[in-house]
Amino acid sequence: MSKTLAVNAGSSSMKWQMYEMPEEKVLAKGLIERIGLKDSIITVKFGDQKEERVFDIPDHTEAVHVLLDDLKRLSIVEEFTEITGVGHRVVAGGELFKKSTVVTPEVLQQVKDLSALAPLHNPANAAGIEAFLNLLPDATSVVVFDTAFHTTMPEKAFRYPLPKKYYTEHAVRKYGAHGTSHEYVAHEAAKLLGKPIEETKIITAHIGNGASITAINGGKSVDTSMGFTPLAGVMMGTRTGEMDPSVFPYLIENDSELKNAQDVVDMMNKKSGLFGVSGISSDMRDIIAAKDENPDAQLAFEMYVDRIQKYIGQYLAVLNGADALVFTAGIGENSVPVRAAILEGLTWFGIEVDPDKNDWGTVGEISKASSRVKIYVIPTDEELVIARDVESLKNK
Amino acid sequence: MSKTLAVNAGSSSMKWQMYEMPEEKVLAKGLIERIGLKDSIITVKFGDQKEERVFDIPDHTEAVHVLLDDLKRLSIVEEFTEITGVGHRVVAGGELFKKSTVVTPEVLQQVKDLSALAPLHNPANAAGIEAFLNLLPDATSVVVFDTAFHTTMPEKAFRYPLPKKYYTEHAVRKYGAHGTSHEYVAHEAAKLLGKPIEETKIITAHIGNGASITAINGGKSVDTSMGFTPLAGVMMGTRTGEMDPSVFPYLIENDSELKNAQDVVDMMNKKSGLFGVSGISSDMRDIIAAKDENPDAQLAFEMYVDRIQKYIGQYLAVLNGADALVFTAGIGENSVPVRAAILEGLTWFGIEVDPDKNDWGTVGEISKASSRVKIYVIPTDEELVIARDVESLKNK
Repeated sequence: MSKTLAVNAGSSSMKWQMYEMPEEKVLAKGLIERIGLKDSIITVKFGDQKEERVFDIPDHTEAVHVLLDDLKRLSIVEEFTEITGVGHRVVAGGELFKKSTVVTPEVLQQVKDLSALAPLHNPANAAGIEAFLNLLPDATSVVVFDTAFHTTMPEKAFRYPLPKKYYTEHAVRKYGAHGTSHEYVAHEAAKLLGKPIEETKIITAHIGNGASITAINGGKSVDTSMGFTPLAGVMMGTRTGEMDPSVFPYLIENDSELKNAQDVVDMMNKKSGLFGVSGISSDMRDIIAAKDENPDAQLAFEMYVDRIQKYIGQYLAVLNGADALVFTAGIGENSVPVRAAILEGLTWFGIEVDPDKNDWGTVGEISKASSRVKIYVIPTDEELVIARDVESLKNK
Repeated sequence: MSKTLAVNAGSSSMKWQMYEMPEEKVLAKGLIERIGLKDSIITVKFGDQKEERVFDIPDHTEAVHVLLDDLKRLSIVEEFTEITGVGHRVVAGGELFKKSTVVTPEVLQQVKDLSALAPLHNPANAAGIEAFLNLLPDATSVVVFDTAFHTTMPEKAFRYPLPKKYYTEHAVRKYGAHGTSHEYVAHEAAKLLGKPIEETKIITAHIGNGASITAINGGKSVDTSMGFTPLAGVMMGTRTGEMDPSVFPYLIENDSELKNAQDVVDMMNKKSGLFGVSGISSDMRDIIAAKDENPDAQLAFEMYVDRIQKYIGQYLAVLNGADALVFTAGIGENSVPVRAAILEGLTWFGIEVDPDKNDWGTVGEISKASSRVKIYVIPTDEELVIARDVESLKNK
C-alpha cells in the first residue's frame, strides 16, 4: 500500500488529504485551524466518521505532530512508513519554479527565500515542509507551486508598465495564483471538448472567497487576473482587485485611520470586496439572501458580476476567442444566480447558457448546443493535483 | 460678430482657440507653455501666420493678460467686447457637475472646492476662469467638465470594491476623464452609423499621451477606463494604468528611492508606461522607430497594444456587443501600426479591419464591409465642444 498526503498550509491553518495512490482513493482528510491562536480546531474525516477537537497548537511544526499522531490513533495508518509521499502546496514559486519539484535542502531554502513575495504563506509552507521532513524522513517530499502554471505567461502579460528596474531588481511582475486549480479544470474541460488540450483555448474562472480568472491557450496560461500578489484581479470576498494607484496617497492624507501604504493594503485585503461594499458579509450566499432588501448587498452583487464579466471579455480578447469557459471553486461550482447573472450579459459573444442545465448540482456542460463557447461547471481538486504530482515525481 | 474663446488650462500651460460662432470657424489658436517656469513659450497661429515668443510668465493670471494683449496686438480682435463667450475646460467636476455650466461666484468656488480630486489642474482652471472674469466681465463664462459625460455611469461601474465609507465620506469613486472627447467622437460615429445615438453601442478609444477607453450605450457613458484620477486604465506614455495595490508597501520597503505612497504614485504617473518599460521615450513614434532593434521598446509596444485590446474586450462585455469602435486622439488618429496591432487580435469578435483603409491620413471607416463592428478613425475636437457649449448656454 502506498499512501500520499497532500498538504495545504495557510498562515494559520493546515488542510490535508490522504490518498491511496495510484488509485486516487481518498482515505481521510482534515483541517487544523487557528494555529498559533487560542483554541485551535482539529478536524479529521475518514470513512463515515468525523472527529473534531479543540486545543492550543502553537505553530505549524506542532500541527504536523498532531496530524501524524491522529493518523495512527484513528488507525488511518498502522506505520508511518506506509506514507511514501507528501506534497506541499506552496504559494510563491517566483520565476524559479516552473513545475512541481522534489524537496532538497536547496529547494527548501529557495522556498524560504521567496517569502518576500508571500510573507504570510511561504514561511508557513516552509515550516510544514521541515516538520514532515523530520518526522517522515523516508517519504518523498514534493513542492507544488500555485504560481508554476502561470510561468508560461508571455512577458507582455506578466510585466507591469513600471520602470524596468522594478522587475529586474525587485522581481515586481505578475505571478498569478490558483495555478493547480486552473490547470486541473482546463484539462478536464479539454476532455469534455473532446480535443487535445494543445488545440484548445479555455477561460477558467476560479471564483471562491479568493478568485482568479485565467486565459489558457493550448494548455498554457497566457494571462491571469491575480498579479504580483493575490490582491489583484477581480473583486473578491474581502479584496478589492486592482485599483487606481492614486487612492493611496489620497486616503493616507484624508482618512485618519490609514496612516501608511501598509494600512491601505491591509484594508484592501481584509475589509473590501463583497464585505466592504455590502457592509454585511464576504460570503456570496449572505449577499444573495440579503440583496432584495438591502441596496448595498444588491450593489455588491452587481459589482462582483460586472468585474468577472469584464475579465471574461478581456480574456476573449487576449485569446482572440475561446472554445470553453469554465466555472470552478466555491462560487463558480455552486452559485447558480452568479453564473446566470454573468452569462446573461455575454450573449453577443455567442455565449449561450441553458437555463435548465444551470441548476444546483450540475457538473459538466451548462451551455446550449448552439453556444459558440461551451460553458462548463467543473469541481476543482487541488489536493488531487498535488497527490498526482507526488506520485509522478516519486516514480522518477 | 460673435467670438468665443475655448480655453484649456493645464497645470503649467494654457491652450486656447478662438471661434466665430455659430459658424464654428476657427479664427486663431495658441498655446502658452512653461507657465511659472523660466522662459515660457507663447505661440499664436492665425490665418497663415505663426508667432512664437519666449519670456517669463509667472502664473495663469498673467498668461490670460498676455493672451488678450496678443489678440489685440495681432488684430485678431479690435475690441474685447467682440468676445462674447469664454469656455473653460475643467478637469474635475466631481459628482456635482453633470453638464457644462455658466460660471457664477458659487460655481467658481465649487471648482476650487473640487481641487482635492485634481490638485494640479482645478486650481489652474480656477485661476484662468478668474482672470477672464476680471478682464472680460461682459462675456459669458462657461465651465466644461472632463468628467461630466461620465456622470451617467451606473453605480456598479463607478464604485470601487472598497468599504462604502470611502465613497460616502471621501468621494473615492471612478470619475473618468476626456469626457468631451468621448462624447464628441461618439456623436460623430452615430452619424457615420446613420442611426440615432440613442440606438447605438459605441466603444471610444481616446489614445494619446494620456489615454482612456469608454463604453457608451445610447449616447451615455456606462464605463470608462480612467478612474478616481487619470492614472487608472490603460498603460500610457508615462503612466501605469491600474495596478496590484500590493506593490505600494513592497516598493516602499524594498526600494530606497521610494519613501512613501506619494513617491510611488509620482513614479507611476511620470516615469512609467511606455517610457518606463522602453527606457527611451514616452512617445509612441519613438517606440515604433526603435522596436525592431530594441527589445525593451518592442515589449513596451506589445504591452500597450495588449492593454488596449483588453479594455476593448471588457467593454464589449459591458455593452454586450458594439456597433462601432472609434479611434481618436494623437495615437488613435495617426498611428497605423498601433491600430493594426490592436485590431489583428480581435478578429474572433467579427472586428475586421480593411488594411487598405487603415492607412495614414484616413478619416472615417477603416473596417471591411463585412465587419460586425464598424471601425472608425475620428479626429477629436475638444475645443469645438467647448465653444458649442458656450454658444448653447449663452443663448439660454
